[in-house]
Amino acid sequence: MDIITQANEEAIRRMLTGDPVLVDVVPATEAIDGLKDRMILHAGPPVAWKNMCGPMRGAVTGIAVFEGWAENLADAEEQADAGAFEFHPNHHFDAVGPMTGMTTMSQPVMVVENRAFGNRAFCTINEGLGKVMRFGGNDLEVLDRLRWLRGSFGPAFGRALRHIDGLPLKDLIARGLTMGDEMHQRNIGCSSLTLRALAPAFAATSDENDALSRALAFLGGNDQFFLNIAMAMGKSVMDPVRDIEGSSVVTAMSRNGTEFGIRVSGTGDQWFTAPVEMPEGLYFPGFTSDDANPDMGDSTIVETVGLGGFAMAAAPAVAGFVGAGTATEAAATTHAMAEIVHSENPEWTIPSLNYLGVPTGIDVRYVVETGLAPTINTGIAHKDPGVGQVGAGVVRAPLACFEQAVWALADRLGIA
Amino acid sequence: MDIITQANEEAIRRMLTGDPVLVDVVPATEAIDGLKDRMILHAGPPVAWKNMCGPMRGAVTGIAVFEGWAENLADAEEQADAGAFEFHPNHHFDAVGPMTGMTTMSQPVMVVENRAFGNRAFCTINEGLGKVMRFGGNDLEVLDRLRWLRGSFGPAFGRALRHIDGLPLKDLIARGLTMGDEMHQRNIGCSSLTLRALAPAFAATSDENDALSRALAFLGGNDQFFLNIAMAMGKSVMDPVRDIEGSSVVTAMSRNGTEFGIRVSGTGDQWFTAPVEMPEGLYFPGFTSDDANPDMGDSTIVETVGLGGFAMAAAPAVAGFVGAGTATEAAATTHAMAEIVHSENPEWTIPSLNYLGVPTGIDVRYVVETGLAPTINTGIAHKDPGVGQVGAGVVRAPLACFEQAVWALADRLGIA
Repeated sequence: MDIITQANEEAIRRMLTGDPVLVDVVPATEAIDGLKDRMILHAGPPVAWKNMCGPMRGAVTGIAVFEGWAENLADAEEQADAGAFEFHPNHHFDAVGPMTGMTTMSQPVMVVENRAFGNRAFCTINEGLGKVMRFGGNDLEVLDRLRWLRGSFGPAFGRALRHIDGLPLKDLIARGLTMGDEMHQRNIGCSSLTLRALAPAFAATSDENDALSRALAFLGGNDQFFLNIAMAMGKSVMDPVRDIEGSSVVTAMSRNGTEFGIRVSGTGDQWFTAPVEMPEGLYFPGFTSDDANPDMGDSTIVETVGLGGFAMAAAPAVAGFVGAGTATEAAATTHAMAEIVHSENPEWTIPSLNYLGVPTGIDVRYVVETGLAPTINTGIAHKDPGVGQVGAGVVRAPLACFEQAVWALADRLGIA
Repeated sequence: MDIITQANEEAIRRMLTGDPVLVDVVPATEAIDGLKDRMILHAGPPVAWKNMCGPMRGAVTGIAVFEGWAENLADAEEQADAGAFEFHPNHHFDAVGPMTGMTTMSQPVMVVENRAFGNRAFCTINEGLGKVMRFGGNDLEVLDRLRWLRGSFGPAFGRALRHIDGLPLKDLIARGLTMGDEMHQRNIGCSSLTLRALAPAFAATSDENDALSRALAFLGGNDQFFLNIAMAMGKSVMDPVRDIEGSSVVTAMSRNGTEFGIRVSGTGDQWFTAPVEMPEGLYFPGFTSDDANPDMGDSTIVETVGLGGFAMAAAPAVAGFVGAGTATEAAATTHAMAEIVHSENPEWTIPSLNYLGVPTGIDVRYVVETGLAPTINTGIAHKDPGVGQVGAGVVRAPLACFEQAVWALADRLGIA
């Protein structure tokens, strides 16, 4: 067996044997080694302040106010211009974040432990829909919600998780796939299952029923609550797949609103980047594609692990929401993605495709050979800072990233 | 337009404009006019004690002990033999009950109000899976659970519902259909949505967190919790369809474990009955079809309103559970049921069939003409008293019921 085949078999084995468990919620500074004052982790590959898109800048100024580093948004912008903040990708710190993906010291992060490999991954708590920081929102309402997540909901969520010794995610996601979720733009099934599993523990570890009622209403009222859990899950499953000499399997796909980047197992932590594309989608009333920011966020870790656009057939209801057509077209998308991967996942199956497993283990070579770029379901942010979500759609990963990766891998193996 | 066509259009109009809302939980004796001491309401058309099947007898003796009418099961059986209890169908008292369908004075019942027509329907609270009274269970564990439902969970459930001014069911069921539920043998989506809607209200109206935690765990841990809500919903929607002169639309299908019975709008409250059939299904480990009791329960009100077996395509995961084959065969079942109804329901649609509405308004004439008997998803009880559920499967309504109804309707219209 040649080195690439052997390496990819090992990559698939690690993906399929991952055992992700949501174990805790703690302040980011406790969870993430090296996260310090005035450091801001963001979505996607590295990007300098001057190259950041509108919503990313909006989120940066908002989070600087939230952390007490700036008096107000204008002050935060001046400080950013003056280089007062240090920027790094979430992916460089075992973390992921949706859309703008702000991760900073005092925010609570969810901790997913991959019990098969012992590694941990982190993601902030989903804020809900509309005007929220991940879509570039930064006003008082947005910051107040973050304060409540930090001061009340996050600690209660952590207590509940510790009370039940963690929430295993593999079976929960399997069940979500039978409930019409694809875990990127549709998470109502898994969000509901999370509430089912945690509500008794929230109650058992609370002594203040108004706060408890508000926490349960927040968890139960947010159809996308599970997205951030799915992302930390994806990161925890993909991280042990990194650095397998010779493997052409994609370990991360991510976008910062300016560039799309991928990482491949056999080329380690190198990013292969290209300009992000514009999602094609449906817009909320009052907005059009003229308002849209290009593709953004670490949430493509969900597609990297075989869900999201790859599991479109499981979620015919989301196909309409993101403008991807009918159930028939949703099934075609999943079948197309099956052409660029190594395996199906026997534990994550799609009932409407007679229990076909989700496409697992993207191979950069197959993407380049077929010209089939990974299909991604995504939210769409307004291009200006401070506005928020304006729609949802589908976007393709730029082929250029995969072409670069193939050449780099070939170079590394001396077969270029 | 002839009288039958006109009458059926009115029947469909009433079905589609129903507005069922789960409004309260109260002791049965407060909800149900005429329900009195030593009266036992059961599933299906009328049946005498001596003709009752094993699990129905098991449930009767159990509920007599629960209500304090008998010292023990043996005493209850002697009293039943001596005629100490009065038996009536739930359907004669605006109620429905799953499987054996025991409804008695002190049990809490859920109240569904059809706000478009002002009528109310009642159903007891789902006990969970396995050894439970609806499947003929009657031991201490079963009775203790019923006591807890009466003394703790039922009152808390009622407080929560009143706190939110009731839970509208039409949209919730629409959402459940996008989550893989057919509302008969698969209710995990709607059960979860019910928890989402009610958990904050449970918390806001509780002052004892151990009881609250237990209540939330019960609601969240029972995948079939919503079944009994769906049944009361179905009854509340179908009751206003009764007694439309000339209508050939089925208003109820129900089974007592001995006979299957249907009622038709144009023939009022008359039951057309035939011996029940045996479900074909899958059995829990350790049981076979030799252990099975024939078809039983008022739960076929769910199919009557267009869900359950009629919505099989929405729930490919349940098709496997009940032994009805793959997603392809589930779709075929829904298409077949579309041949014996008048309409599709534009508000209850199936994403995987590109948003086809569920088949609505069974016409006894179409059943007889096509020979396509309604397909019903059902649980299977052990044939002996006191055992409980042993499997799940699919059963057909006996054609003889529909043939009798066609003749009776023709006779009534003077066209026989």
